[in-house]
Formats: sequence, C-alpha cells, structure tokens
Amino acid sequence: MGPHPAVAAIRLAVRRVLHDILTELNTPAGVPAATAAGRTPEGASGLPASPLVLVACSGGADSMALASALAFEAPRLGIRAGGVTVDHGLQHGSDLRAEEVVLRLRELGLDPVEATAVTVGREGGPEAAARDARYAALDEAAARHGAAAVLLGHTRDDQAETVLLGLARGSGIRSLSGMAAVSGAGGRYRRPFLQVDRQTARKACMVQSLPVWDDPHNADPAYTRSRLRHEGLPALEKALGKGVVEALARTAQLSRDDADALDTWARQAEAGVRDATGVLECAKLYALPPAVRRRILRRAALDAGAPGGALFARHIEEVDRLITGWRGQGAINLPGKVVARRQGGRLVIRQG
Amino acid sequence: MGPHPAVAAIRLAVRRVLHDILTELNTPAGVPAATAAGRTPEGASGLPASPLVLVACSGGADSMALASALAFEAPRLGIRAGGVTVDHGLQHGSDLRAEEVVLRLRELGLDPVEATAVTVGREGGPEAAARDARYAALDEAAARHGAAAVLLGHTRDDQAETVLLGLARGSGIRSLSGMAAVSGAGGRYRRPFLQVDRQTARKACMVQSLPVWDDPHNADPAYTRSRLRHEGLPALEKALGKGVVEALARTAQLSRDDADALDTWARQAEAGVRDATGVLECAKLYALPPAVRRRILRRAALDAGAPGGALFARHIEEVDRLITGWRGQGAINLPGKVVARRQGGRLVIRQG
Repeated sequence: MGPHPAVAAIRLAVRRVLHDILTELNTPAGVPAATAAGRTPEGASGLPASPLVLVACSGGADSMALASALAFEAPRLGIRAGGVTVDHGLQHGSDLRAEEVVLRLRELGLDPVEATAVTVGREGGPEAAARDARYAALDEAAARHGAAAVLLGHTRDDQAETVLLGLARGSGIRSLSGMAAVSGAGGRYRRPFLQVDRQTARKACMVQSLPVWDDPHNADPAYTRSRLRHEGLPALEKALGKGVVEALARTAQLSRDDADALDTWARQAEAGVRDATGVLECAKLYALPPAVRRRILRRAALDAGAPGGALFARHIEEVDRLITGWRGQGAINLPGKVVARRQGGRLVIRQG
Repeated sequence: MGPHPAVAAIRLAVRRVLHDILTELNTPAGVPAATAAGRTPEGASGLPASPLVLVACSGGADSMALASALAFEAPRLGIRAGGVTVDHGLQHGSDLRAEEVVLRLRELGLDPVEATAVTVGREGGPEAAARDARYAALDEAAARHGAAAVLLGHTRDDQAETVLLGLARGSGIRSLSGMAAVSGAGGRYRRPFLQVDRQTARKACMVQSLPVWDDPHNADPAYTRSRLRHEGLPALEKALGKGVVEALARTAQLSRDDADALDTWARQAEAGVRDATGVLECAKLYALPPAVRRRILRRAALDAGAPGGALFARHIEEVDRLITGWRGQGAINLPGKVVARRQGGRLVIRQG
C-alpha cells in the first residue's frame, strides 16, 4: 500500500523541484553536479559533498508538510536535507517555539537544523517588515551552509491571496503574477507547493502525526491577508464557485508570463525611442502600443529615482498624456521629486 | 449655482463621449460630419440630418441617469438623442414596464424612442442568452434608425464585477480586461459610465427626481453577478479596503492594453514560425516567449475549429508541452474534435 494521497501529493511536488535543482546543478552537457562552479562545497575527504537543500519552516502545517516531504525525498536523490526556522521575536515565547521546531525538524532526520533570531523593523508595515527580516536571515543561512536551494511552503491558497492583494493595488498584471516558483539570487528560493492546496498540506501532517503550530497572526483580523483568508476569499468562493483559488493561481502564472514578455518588448523597444543623446522622443513613443510605451515611461521614472513602491499606474498615465494628449500641459510631478516634462518633441524625466 | 455634483459627473462623462463621436464622424481633415461616408442619414430637405445617438435604457438607475445626461448634452452639440428599451419578456408585466420606460424617455425629450421585444433563448445560460438577445435588438434598432452610436449604462461597479467574473475563469489577462469603452461593429457601443460609480448614477436620478426601476434579477442570488454584487465584492472591500472597485476597473484597462499588445506581437510572430507549407515549426515556436507562443497555439486551435468558449488555458498548456516538454507524448485532444500532434519537428493542429 502506498502513502496517503495527501502525502503522495506533497512528496511528488518536492521530488519535482529536487529534480530541477539537480538538473541545474549539472552542466547542460551532463557533467556531474560537483563540478558545476562552486554550487556544492567539498567534503573533508576532498571529494565533493552532496548538495544541500534547506527548508524554511515556521512549524505551521504548510512548512512542516514541506519538511517531511524533503526529509523523505532528498536522501533518495543523493541530496542532504536541512532546515531553518526564523524567530521573529514578535510574540512572547517565540524563542521556545523556535527551539521546538528545531527539535521536530531533527526528528524528521534533517541536518543541519538551526533557529535564527531576527529583529523586525517597521518599514513598509508589519507584514513587509517581518518578510524582509525573514528573507535576510534565510539568505544568510543559505550562504553560510552553502545550500543549493531553500524551499518555501507557500501553497496555492497563499498564491490566490497574493493575487487578490495585487489586484487591490490596481497597478497592472505584474502585481497579479503572485509569487514565483523560482526566485531570489541565482534562483535560490523554490516554492514546491504553489500547486498544492493548504488542505492537502494539513492533511499530510495529520496522517503523518506531525504536530503543527497555528500562528495566531494568521487569524488576526488586523492583518489584511488574514481578513482575505477568512472572509474575502470564502465570500468570493461562495459567489463564484469553488474553483476560484485554482483560477487565481492560474491567473498568476499567465500574468507572470505576459508581464515578462512585455518587459522584454519594452527593453528592446527602448533603445529605438531615444535620440543620440539618450533623451526620449515623443513621436517614436507615440508609435508604440500603449502597453509598451507605459512600461518604458515607468522604467524611465524609476531610473530617474522615483521609488517603485510609490509610483502608481495613475502617475504613468499622466506622463503618458504628455505623449498622447499633448495640449501644452506643464511638468508632471512624480514621487521622489522626479519631474516629467515635454520639451519640444522630447520627453525629459529627471530629478527636480 | 451649477447642477448637483452627481449630475455634473454624469453629464461630463456623456459630453466626453459625444465629443469623441463627433470627432470620429468628421474626417481627420475637419470635413463636417455629414460628409463622412454614410454615417448620418440625409434629412427630407436633402440636407444632412444631425447625427443620432441612442441610449439603451432598462429603466434602472444607471441607464436612466445616462438617458437624462444624453437628453441634456446632445442638443448642445447638435446631436439628436433617442432611446431604446428592450423587453426581454422574462417577467410578468415586462411589456407594461417597457412602455413605462418609453414614456419616461419621451418625457426627457428623447426622440425617437421605442420598446423592442425579444425572445431570450437558452444558449450559454440565462445571463448570456439575455445579453445576446438584447444586443441583437439594439443592433437592429441602431441600423434601422441610422444611429451613429448606442450608449450603454455600465458603471465602474459593473466593470469591477466583470473583472472578477473573468478572474474566476482563470484564463488569462484578456478575460480580466472587462468591458471596452468602445465596442461592437464600427465602435457602435459606447460606455460613458465606466469611470462613474453606481452610487453617483443613483444619486443623479434622485436629485433629478427620476423614478427608477430595480430589476429583481439584480438581487436574485441565483445569478452569479448578483451574488458577486451583494456578497462577494462587499466582502472583498471589507478585507482589502474601499479602493477595490477602482483598482479592479484600472486592472481592466491595463489588462486590455497588455492583451492587445501581446495579440499584436503574436500575429506578427506567427508568419515567422510556419514552414513553406504553413505548418508550425517546433524549434521556432520554442524560441518565442511563452506568452507569445501560447497565443499562437490558441489561435491555431481556434483556426482549426476549436470553439473559443470551450478552449481553456489548460488545453493550451498541454499543447505547449509538445513544444517545451517533448518526451514522445501522443496526440492532444482539444474541444471541437481538434487534435494537436507533434510530427517530427512540426506541430500539426487540425480537425480529427
């Protein structure tokens, strides 16, 4: 008898990602992983050690399921499996809980395993600040251990929530593209569970008798994501049907591919719309499709120093009207003291 | 003292669209509207009559507000304003209600005004069938009266609902692009209120003492759109904040521009990926960005006879794997008895 379907599903998802990692560690010609430049440390014997993959684990159901699947699959592929838990220090006793997660990961057979404490700042709000601190700690741990990859437990439900959060910004398809399956420097972060739903991860923990920890933040209505999870998304499912989460996750993937293609187009078109001195020419911009033109304008504003988080679609629309609806309007003020103005047939975007 | 802000807002929205219509009726060189080929009928005197713009009016707040704004703005621009109400025959007494709407439109000074009865079929579900019958009747009325345009009362809230309905399909950014401000053959249909919210339209009716009719269908939880309006969207607003409707409407516009640009790219790229006999070449398809390649594959499936409504993103993904994940898999069956198979380095998509 094989494993429970939920356990089979999480293992398959992890196995696929480990295969990808091994394939990438090997050079295209099929040279063994160890010779691929500097990705795997050498063992004490002088022989190359097997590659290490870490799991980032909060102790919650998603990442505990991920840790259990990694512990099962990694040895079968000649991969070492380790784990890191981040103590955000935001709740009383979080250090004790982190130690408990360490013990559980060790019980699964992971090695090395560590807890790392971080100080969460305030920039960008509580959720963004905690996320920044967490990724900095994971980056540091991955580098220190020479890990080939760090697995993250985000599920299809997390992805659906991320798409809705992006939708609420109304800033276009890039913000609808959710979380990437592969991200970070050198593709360090992998999300094997983006096609796995939360219910499956929880079930896999249950049938494997893995104790899980429910972060009270996840149920705290002070957090946007929590309100979305417990009220927004269920109401949407009630109105639109049970397939909403899957549809949102699929939208993420399609939007990501579309946004990538349009960014490529904009990059290629950009050289052709600047004059010999590098200034943007309005007539040439006008001839481009709006979707491409606005991406060039956005990039020009960012290059001039406008902060990405404060630069909204409506700013770019206003700059675009200097091209498409020119009636002698004055300079457009953008965030970060960047100013866009039309001078003759040229569009000048620069600081102050 | 000027009009109430809500009335000013709806009039401004209509005035902008009427300006656009007049501009388009005139040739680029500024020749008067009447000489633009066949768009305006000639009056009995042999002189060109002023152009006619119709409003499609259900008697609900949105389209009554639209009718009132058209009645006010059209004469000031030398435009004749008329109205059509469609009797779907779905409710007892709908014919009487249609007559009542005709009276109200005449009271606003519209001329010609007519009620037109349609028979709603069953194809595509009750909402789609009613919509198809309605547009067929409006097309016919517009042609019969020689109307330059038909105004539709869809508001920003309707647009937000349409985006969410598209999101639930999970079929990519084209389905996120909502309703177009200009659509139909020759740009016949115009939606002046896509940036106006439902509350403003209702307020404008109230302050103008216009009686409005609330379609019981709009509150019937049997209809997806009604559930979305009364439960889904409010819950989403509660979770994400009041800006959700605006964000969704903006997403529609951005998605539409992006989808248009990518369709253009795919059309241009298509010729380059076919061999001398017109068959798709896998190596050339492989070199394209996934977003462009999948659009070419979708178009090829449609050209081969696959019905658009049944052709989902997952079908195209499966065909795409014949290009990107070739491991000798068999033919892929698509809706409409269309089959996609890889033969040597070629991709053949055809019936049976």
